[in-house]
Amino acid sequence: KAFPSLSEAEIAKLPRVKQKMVAPPFAPEHDPVAKGGPKVVEVTLTVEEMPWKLDDEAETIALTFNGSVPGPLIVVHEGDYVEVTMENPETNAMEHNVDFHSATGALGGGGLTHVLPGETAVLRWKATKPGAFVYHCAPGGSMIPYHVIKGMNGAVVVLPRDGLTDGRGNPITYDKMYYIGEQDFYVPKDENGNYMKFTEAGEDFSEVMELARGLIPTHEVFNGRVGALTGEGAMTAKVGEKVLFVHSQANRDCRPHLIGGHWNYSWEAGSFDDVPGRGHETAIIRGGSAGVFHYEFEQPGVYAYVNHNLIEATELGAVAHMVVEGEWNDDLMKQINKGGETV
Amino acid sequence: KAFPSLSEAEIAKLPRVKQKMVAPPFAPEHDPVAKGGPKVVEVTLTVEEMPWKLDDEAETIALTFNGSVPGPLIVVHEGDYVEVTMENPETNAMEHNVDFHSATGALGGGGLTHVLPGETAVLRWKATKPGAFVYHCAPGGSMIPYHVIKGMNGAVVVLPRDGLTDGRGNPITYDKMYYIGEQDFYVPKDENGNYMKFTEAGEDFSEVMELARGLIPTHEVFNGRVGALTGEGAMTAKVGEKVLFVHSQANRDCRPHLIGGHWNYSWEAGSFDDVPGRGHETAIIRGGSAGVFHYEFEQPGVYAYVNHNLIEATELGAVAHMVVEGEWNDDLMKQINKGGETV
Amino acid sequence: KAFPSLSEAEIAKLPRVKQKMVAPPFAPEHDPVAKGGPKVVEVTLTVEEMPWKLDDEAETIALTFNGSVPGPLIVVHEGDYVEVTMENPETNAMEHNVDFHSATGALGGGGLTHVLPGETAVLRWKATKPGAFVYHCAPGGSMIPYHVIKGMNGAVVVLPRDGLTDGRGNPITYDKMYYIGEQDFYVPKDENGNYMKFTEAGEDFSEVMELARGLIPTHEVFNGRVGALTGEGAMTAKVGEKVLFVHSQANRDCRPHLIGGHWNYSWEAGSFDDVPGRGHETAIIRGGSAGVFHYEFEQPGVYAYVNHNLIEATELGAVAHMVVEGEWNDDLMKQINKGGETV
Ligand SMILES: [Cu+2]
Ligand SMILES: [Cu+2]
Ligand SMILES: [Cu+2]
Ligand SMILES: [Cu+2]
Ligand SMILES: [Cu+2]
Ligand SMILES: [Cu+2]
Ligand SMILES: [Mg+2]
Ligand SMILES: [Mg+2]
Ligand SMILES: [Mg+2]
Ligand SMILES: [Mg+2]
Ligand SMILES: [Mg+2]
Ligand SMILES: [Mg+2]
Ligand SMILES: [Mg+2]
Ligand SMILES: [Mg+2]
Ligand SMILES: [Mg+2]
Repeated sequence: KAFPSLSEAEIAKLPRVKQKMVAPPFAPEHDPVAKGGPKVVEVTLTVEEMPWKLDDEAETIALTFNGSVPGPLIVVHEGDYVEVTMENPETNAMEHNVDFHSATGALGGGGLTHVLPGETAVLRWKATKPGAFVYHCAPGGSMIPYHVIKGMNGAVVVLPRDGLTDGRGNPITYDKMYYIGEQDFYVPKDENGNYMKFTEAGEDFSEVMELARGLIPTHEVFNGRVGALTGEGAMTAKVGEKVLFVHSQANRDCRPHLIGGHWNYSWEAGSFDDVPGRGHETAIIRGGSAGVFHYEFEQPGVYAYVNHNLIEATELGAVAHMVVEGEWNDDLMKQINKGGETV
Repeated sequence: KAFPSLSEAEIAKLPRVKQKMVAPPFAPEHDPVAKGGPKVVEVTLTVEEMPWKLDDEAETIALTFNGSVPGPLIVVHEGDYVEVTMENPETNAMEHNVDFHSATGALGGGGLTHVLPGETAVLRWKATKPGAFVYHCAPGGSMIPYHVIKGMNGAVVVLPRDGLTDGRGNPITYDKMYYIGEQDFYVPKDENGNYMKFTEAGEDFSEVMELARGLIPTHEVFNGRVGALTGEGAMTAKVGEKVLFVHSQANRDCRPHLIGGHWNYSWEAGSFDDVPGRGHETAIIRGGSAGVFHYEFEQPGVYAYVNHNLIEATELGAVAHMVVEGEWNDDLMKQINKGGETV
Repeated sequence: KAFPSLSEAEIAKLPRVKQKMVAPPFAPEHDPVAKGGPKVVEVTLTVEEMPWKLDDEAETIALTFNGSVPGPLIVVHEGDYVEVTMENPETNAMEHNVDFHSATGALGGGGLTHVLPGETAVLRWKATKPGAFVYHCAPGGSMIPYHVIKGMNGAVVVLPRDGLTDGRGNPITYDKMYYIGEQDFYVPKDENGNYMKFTEAGEDFSEVMELARGLIPTHEVFNGRVGALTGEGAMTAKVGEKVLFVHSQANRDCRPHLIGGHWNYSWEAGSFDDVPGRGHETAIIRGGSAGVFHYEFEQPGVYAYVNHNLIEATELGAVAHMVVEGEWNDDLMKQINKGGETV
């Protein structure tokens, strides 16, 4: 094992840092290459049950970690210990917990973090495998998919201490990291074909689950809402910048594609212990996982970042934009004649 | 080619062994590393058309190999010859055959094994590629999906003669092997919304196929029934044991995930000629294939093994349990404060 | 970078070749290993909006590149420049464009190739990454999936200049290349359950898109029609021949499987910069991508090439045939006893 088992006394002596969580698509401040040895990284997840607009027509009661869908991205290094404070404020209506795919045992910690409204649990787990991993609420039985499809999921990135490599001996660097959480919502309609509105968390349980059994969502969105990552919310970069995209879907398969680009490196199954794919046009994220994609932008302009089931993209909502500044490169692409011109 | 073509006379001189088939999730006795050279391995597949309870509400007439869904796991070594006796007892109503994805030519043997009730066919095929492969009935046309979604499929594991490796020069060992066959069922409902019951194999053909055309199953289960691998049927291991999971789905994509674990090695596409993935949280099984996953258990407790489309898991039935005994490791995970306690 | 940026003057001096496009499943004439340095390869894509029979019952108005579904395969080498003439004849009704997944910037060229009926655009892009890539029409918003699910997509193969390798130092050769474009169609039905007929391109937009939102196609076919690649249209080979299959699906995931064979090499995600998988029974094509599969035929007979969701294969149309001539090999498979015989 790369990282030896430590005793409780040894863990108590490790440096402790508090990770400042930020709302996606942003990633918390972090070192791409670790400085020093393992740390205890403290994170706080606070459950917020809240009304949530999906688009102009549909709204639901979302269940969230820290008020965002997806929950905040956590970034640590292999060998670190993550100490999670899981708060369920008294104002909430439902029981929650958290299952980390990156953690070992006790249903990923789900068995040790059940909190009723007004309760707080604290769990420590060790990051043993490098990669990107989903976390999500999993209170038991049908409540597991219900909480997940209400938005209660996020991701952890466990970086190798020495940083990323291409699996062929070369380091991979990046200038920024974005986190896209793709989310399926199942909003039931009434007999007139209008989206139903509910006022309390859990009130729509039977209608939502009946619809969900059909496995076809009404909405499939990035970062919680149609249009969350377009316009004002668009991601940005400059020509020459290297961007690491973390993409999670806690329930359904999806297929991230950057229109006008093609991943330089893709850790599609999310593990940094794999040799990354190179030059993939489109990836598949296994439902219930997070993958990582690296791209160095070579052209300016607006890129659409989509789920390339194009029906899910334009009709269900899975579209983001990436606005890139810089100089156009004619060698890579040149408009010889514009439509409308006589050739 | 690793294994030279043998003449009929040479094959006649090979040692012959009869593989004792066992019902899944168990695997037949076998040597992880082959002792000696190629053998002829005899297996018998007997078709059983039988009433089949899926849960408290739904039942169907299943079409099975040897009375289980999935059919029995076959385990051989690369270079072995498999001699299959395919029996269709006179008491059955339908024609059947068997297509081995691991076999070469004649539609995987499907073209050479058609048996009407009362008939028996014998087919020999050579295991040329190491990996896990689906076998299934494929009598022709719409009968192909009908027989497959009625349960008539199983898997073969073709081990490298020298055993498994991590693709980086290191052998991989295992203490036990489990076989999970994931199965989609399409049980039609009547006008009152109750599951329809039929009494004869093939009687529900048009209703089932009309429903199946919609591509959304009513049930998605492990080993034939909701709950087949929980409670009494749960799989077991001890901390420190290495378990090899073979997972097949003969028709639909699915995404095996072990809650509280993460595959040490995953041959997701089922080939032992690939370098296995490491540290994957969730895999995707391509519809019509079998994959293999290796995990060394590090913590005791109950693990849920699910299809991580969580709706398919809890609502459609794709949940199994793994009960693991041993000592808890605080280094990997520790409950610092329980919900309900004041922090 | 392997291929340095060239100035406009340098590009002007490169050799120019016109690629003669052929209808799928055939591939254009090409050199598996490039002779000489980069070229400018001229291709012409002409949009044809046309009535299109899917089977005996359903027809639609297809939107096509060059009158076929999928559009013609383009084959170039890494480092080549592709100069695309995109023609939208005056007789058409709709605006079109073309987005190449293999191109860099401007939405894959989609932003620079919008053509109204009567217009022609010319775009040049450089093939920088080796692999198989989808191209498709993407005029904007809901018109993107509409044009794609009406057939307006094809593929480009960018070969490494030195030819294919197995990623372990050995060259991979092939005797022929076939191109299978898998296509989902969504044909709406009227209140009597009959497929609706329309007469003009775009007239069925709202009905098709309403149906498409449900994500379940009415047809899933190879090369545009049920049965396009069976009977007269079957693909052919001889025992000992090596065939390279290029398989694209511009929208939905699919799972190519050759009944009776198993890929020798599979570049499932479509990149020739990946180490190909070996011995895969079934692949998954991510919706919005093209993959490549290599098989050397070892047995004569009829092979079915299917999407191994068998419901999609036999009920929705995703079946092709491969007719192979040569000598049967008893070592690989032998019928010991035929069904019907007493054993
Ligand atoms: Cu919750
Ligand atoms: Cu999970
Ligand atoms: Cu059968
Ligand atoms: Cu099959
Ligand atoms: Cu178009
Ligand atoms: Cu595209
Ligand atoms: Mg490691
Ligand atoms: Mg509970
Ligand atoms: Mg992951
Ligand atoms: Mg071999
Ligand atoms: Mg027959
Ligand atoms: Mg397999
Ligand atoms: Mg290259
Ligand atoms: Mg336009
Ligand atoms: Mg590709």
